[in-house]
Amino acid sequence: MPTLKATMTPGMLRGLLLVLLGIGLFVGSGATALAAGGDPTGADTLAADPNAGLNFAWVLVTGFLVFSMQLGFALLGAGLMRAKHTVNYMTKSFMDFCITGISYWAFGFALMFGASGAVIGGAVANGLTKGNWLIGYSGFFLTSDAYDVTTIALWFFQMIFAATAATIVAGMVAERMKITAYLAYSFLIGAIIYPIYGHWVWGGGWLATLPFGSGARDFAGSGAVHVIGGTVGLMGAWLVGPRIGKFNADGTPNQFKGHNLVYVVAGTFILFFGWFGFNPGTTLAATDLRISVIAVNTFLAGATGAVVALYLGIVRTGKADIIAACNGSLAGLVGVTASVAYVAPWAAVVIGAVAPLVQQAAANFVERRLRIDDVVGAFGVHAGGGLWGLLAVGIFADGTYGGVSGLVAGEGGQLVAQLISMGTVAAWGLGTGFLVFGLLKKTVGLRASREEEMEGLDMPEHGIEAYPQQVD
Amino acid sequence: MPTLKATMTPGMLRGLLLVLLGIGLFVGSGATALAAGGDPTGADTLAADPNAGLNFAWVLVTGFLVFSMQLGFALLGAGLMRAKHTVNYMTKSFMDFCITGISYWAFGFALMFGASGAVIGGAVANGLTKGNWLIGYSGFFLTSDAYDVTTIALWFFQMIFAATAATIVAGMVAERMKITAYLAYSFLIGAIIYPIYGHWVWGGGWLATLPFGSGARDFAGSGAVHVIGGTVGLMGAWLVGPRIGKFNADGTPNQFKGHNLVYVVAGTFILFFGWFGFNPGTTLAATDLRISVIAVNTFLAGATGAVVALYLGIVRTGKADIIAACNGSLAGLVGVTASVAYVAPWAAVVIGAVAPLVQQAAANFVERRLRIDDVVGAFGVHAGGGLWGLLAVGIFADGTYGGVSGLVAGEGGQLVAQLISMGTVAAWGLGTGFLVFGLLKKTVGLRASREEEMEGLDMPEHGIEAYPQQVD
Amino acid sequence: MPTLKATMTPGMLRGLLLVLLGIGLFVGSGATALAAGGDPTGADTLAADPNAGLNFAWVLVTGFLVFSMQLGFALLGAGLMRAKHTVNYMTKSFMDFCITGISYWAFGFALMFGASGAVIGGAVANGLTKGNWLIGYSGFFLTSDAYDVTTIALWFFQMIFAATAATIVAGMVAERMKITAYLAYSFLIGAIIYPIYGHWVWGGGWLATLPFGSGARDFAGSGAVHVIGGTVGLMGAWLVGPRIGKFNADGTPNQFKGHNLVYVVAGTFILFFGWFGFNPGTTLAATDLRISVIAVNTFLAGATGAVVALYLGIVRTGKADIIAACNGSLAGLVGVTASVAYVAPWAAVVIGAVAPLVQQAAANFVERRLRIDDVVGAFGVHAGGGLWGLLAVGIFADGTYGGVSGLVAGEGGQLVAQLISMGTVAAWGLGTGFLVFGLLKKTVGLRASREEEMEGLDMPEHGIEAYPQQVD
Repeated sequence: MPTLKATMTPGMLRGLLLVLLGIGLFVGSGATALAAGGDPTGADTLAADPNAGLNFAWVLVTGFLVFSMQLGFALLGAGLMRAKHTVNYMTKSFMDFCITGISYWAFGFALMFGASGAVIGGAVANGLTKGNWLIGYSGFFLTSDAYDVTTIALWFFQMIFAATAATIVAGMVAERMKITAYLAYSFLIGAIIYPIYGHWVWGGGWLATLPFGSGARDFAGSGAVHVIGGTVGLMGAWLVGPRIGKFNADGTPNQFKGHNLVYVVAGTFILFFGWFGFNPGTTLAATDLRISVIAVNTFLAGATGAVVALYLGIVRTGKADIIAACNGSLAGLVGVTASVAYVAPWAAVVIGAVAPLVQQAAANFVERRLRIDDVVGAFGVHAGGGLWGLLAVGIFADGTYGGVSGLVAGEGGQLVAQLISMGTVAAWGLGTGFLVFGLLKKTVGLRASREEEMEGLDMPEHGIEAYPQQVD
Repeated sequence: MPTLKATMTPGMLRGLLLVLLGIGLFVGSGATALAAGGDPTGADTLAADPNAGLNFAWVLVTGFLVFSMQLGFALLGAGLMRAKHTVNYMTKSFMDFCITGISYWAFGFALMFGASGAVIGGAVANGLTKGNWLIGYSGFFLTSDAYDVTTIALWFFQMIFAATAATIVAGMVAERMKITAYLAYSFLIGAIIYPIYGHWVWGGGWLATLPFGSGARDFAGSGAVHVIGGTVGLMGAWLVGPRIGKFNADGTPNQFKGHNLVYVVAGTFILFFGWFGFNPGTTLAATDLRISVIAVNTFLAGATGAVVALYLGIVRTGKADIIAACNGSLAGLVGVTASVAYVAPWAAVVIGAVAPLVQQAAANFVERRLRIDDVVGAFGVHAGGGLWGLLAVGIFADGTYGGVSGLVAGEGGQLVAQLISMGTVAAWGLGTGFLVFGLLKKTVGLRASREEEMEGLDMPEHGIEAYPQQVD
Repeated sequence: MPTLKATMTPGMLRGLLLVLLGIGLFVGSGATALAAGGDPTGADTLAADPNAGLNFAWVLVTGFLVFSMQLGFALLGAGLMRAKHTVNYMTKSFMDFCITGISYWAFGFALMFGASGAVIGGAVANGLTKGNWLIGYSGFFLTSDAYDVTTIALWFFQMIFAATAATIVAGMVAERMKITAYLAYSFLIGAIIYPIYGHWVWGGGWLATLPFGSGARDFAGSGAVHVIGGTVGLMGAWLVGPRIGKFNADGTPNQFKGHNLVYVVAGTFILFFGWFGFNPGTTLAATDLRISVIAVNTFLAGATGAVVALYLGIVRTGKADIIAACNGSLAGLVGVTASVAYVAPWAAVVIGAVAPLVQQAAANFVERRLRIDDVVGAFGVHAGGGLWGLLAVGIFADGTYGGVSGLVAGEGGQLVAQLISMGTVAAWGLGTGFLVFGLLKKTVGLRASREEEMEGLDMPEHGIEAYPQQVD
């Protein structure tokens, strides 16, 4: 299969290794870091902030939980695939966080937080001093003064968010996109697409400083992670085209069943579990006791989303549709993510109750109007739920946290900032998604051959089936 | 399928949403909370207790681990089901924690802890001041002065315990109970059954203040969670009746095999993992260094239970019975849960060694004497193991923690208190289980039709199989 | 099946229980512990070290994550097995941590840390005062002055490391070793093999005090855990002999496919997740802020290992080999484990990039030169990756942590210490592995019968299949 081989040669691998060695030896040494003002041991940082140990542990442990979401996405998607494409999907799911993580280490983090002067509780990240309203540009490769315990703790947490955005796309373009094209995309979302929007809203860029309300707010990433993933993936799914047989000649869609509902539900459980890292961890400090409210709001929105979706299904069709309940739950979780620190528990219930309605409407719009083939329905969950989440900040923020007040607290300005961020994130995700997948389509090509797709991508691209049939 | 549809209409959903909005807007606002004396931001709480950040993080992270047990129960049970009922079981497992969580938010927590004046380390939960020896009644919906970081942290941890009790029942009534009846039960265990007994033993009620020993003690819920789940489930399994073909005309049982042993063992691993949240987290404080002893006792009891059960199987049948080992391990974990903070590691080994004997005897009693069809054997593990656990406090508590001393420390009074609590919890679980499932049987009906059961519940109730057979 | 029955009688079980009761009642009481100087409640420990709560929580929570790796090993291996041996493998995976944990409680911990005077942050473990350069001998059964919160926290973390070493072997001897022989081995690795080498490098023994560099360093166990597991398992795989049909008459190997690639990838995800406990937790203190660098180095090495292995496969065969990527990722994780605290992020990337090359070379050497049948390829990952990891300390340690400096910091002495530890760990693992499996081969026998192996071990040894085929 020459298309795969052609993308990489042994010489390229060796060259890459030498580049890394070079970077390390010339700018990455411990002596350089100390001379440059980083704190690679943490002794100075702990002396300056006695709570740093607690807050570092919080950031890391919640980050580990977010990491577990990668498995959740992998299982959820795998269950919704047909068996013959399962190895392909699992490979994409496993590799995307690896590749996105590496590109975020090399480039993305510097673009996103290069000028943020970020803190973890009372500890200040070193080496993040260069940038402007549009983009940051320091901290590349975590070398020099960015070889610093605080900067590196921040990197870890943020990297896993980048990887979450990346993997949302895998399910949308599944069962027909070539693995090499997907891996190239994974590099680019971690290096460029995710970080630049992230800079605008979390890295000190222009959205965070809008003169309405408290500026655009997106606490844990309804927009920065989920809408980005959902909109970039929509462009991927559109440009790669629908699966063979997905749409009839008159444009009406057919439903393909997945192959394992246990994986689907298990994946959703794991995603729900990981969300307890995603949202509470975003305080970056356990000394911020609002973490308890955040955890509870997360739970209530996810639980309510599931309940509303399940009973909606019962009312409409007489069936207790578990896939709808899983998606409803995830929509509730995505939906509460932007406002989770700013609202009261009752509001989390309302946000979670509305989320599956938005999610289902968005999914239907994509499938029936746009006629784009989003295999796992991720657009509804992540883009639909995420946009609703950004809006909900402007409605339900009650003024008890961070000074963010929405309509229920009698303030209208926040809603303006949120609407601007909703338009911006959708435009950025759709625009960059179009450029990246368009570029890949023109160059390496996005789509497996018709024969490969009919056979299933597993044997042609990976040489193995998910469930090999052993003779003995 | 009109029975499902009839339970809920779109108007009911809309009405529910409006009720929630109303509650929120009129009593749930941030301003109301502050005026009422709650601390929704946590600033006052942290100022009063500098360790609050650590202890909140401990409560939340261990609570997240307990949440993961939901997946453990789901996989363990799914593996023990026949494939044709698997979607039904997974749906129940996924929905019960959602519904129980919501009913515990609305009602249960207030009944359980309404008068507890509970603390997390040195932080005091606000808004929990009303109640008596029988029942509490403040903190409904976490509004007003219960919109408070400490109260809400406590709610989170306790809610997941309620959800654990709830989901134990799913496996016992599996393969024949209708989803709608099961979901109604889920609401009631979270709203009423679990909280009222919980109040008696954990919320400052009469069992905790018995004039024997230190009063009835159940550290992390051998009784309050596991016996409740096991006994309520026994009534459910009895009232719904045995599966078609389970018992022969002469009353002897047949064994149905499950469909996936990998799920069974994986589920047990995850439950074991989650128990490290369940038991150590119950200190509600990492500043209570006994957490290390608790973690180790948990491990030793679970490991010993598995080893004894496995070798018992080898001795009896010549086979290394992995299902017995999994159940033995879980029985050891349930068994040590009540006493886990009060005993030494050697005692945890003894408790874990005895637990599978009790579990197997209880399971055999239910199946061969009572002729009740407990699909996954949860009565033996949770009720059998749990009652043994309550007893073990009276025997092995060594006086090194919380002033609780049992026979090994030369005190007999604690045993009296434990025996009273054993009778009480069994009576409460059996009684309320009978009432709830009896009521549901008379009204919506418990049991799927004979045709549905023969076909498997998945297609009739959910419209999808666990492992759809795709044509291409 | 008399061979299983003959290994244990009911009388033996009862006897064991009485022994435990005796130990407990005579030397294990709380009063004895207090009198002996242990601190079973933790009050004195907390008074002496106000950070003890944080550091205990860190040690326990990261230990819980390491525990989750047991499930990772179970799923990864199960997926690589043929379905007919899957219950056997799952049983071994589930039981080995139970048995190793118990033998480590009774004996192993005392041999390993008996004279370590170990600390958790500022808290000193009591009861660990007896031993010499070769071996320790206090703390048996965690009784007397070892009934102490700090000692017990240390035990928990170290026990799970012992269990990790133990379970590596399960995959190497799979599909033909008898369960009883495997369980006997599990006891011995936890009681003797793992602890004695562990004492030399972590318990204050001779390797830690070598007069080169900082003495041999193995931060989180590339050698002490992974090389031990890999080399002991190699002896097991050699002595039990290859599976029927593995090697042709001319010595060339055949490849057996596993039965479930989803399990393989899910298991790898879980191992990766657990590694975030394995490495950062080894600081035993969250007040050591280097934990952030450790977490990030862990991630980067694992991600880079996966990427290099995947693209190597694409270059060589045109296929994106997901099993190779999983193994490459694990090799990167093993490879960085020894040096993870001592190196900069760029060096973790280089270590991770080299690891799959070493791993594949080692795996090929075992299969094609030694003609030993290592079912899951664990030798390459754990022994190959582990030896590379020990070496990497001597090369990449940059002097920013613990005073450990390798070649990149201009020091050559550390490399000498590392080379000595590499030879020692390999010799110890191979030697004790040969003795233990040789002894078991001569006594209870290692190998299932030819008929059992052809049928699959599941029915003969366990009486159940992994995927029972239900008639209805």
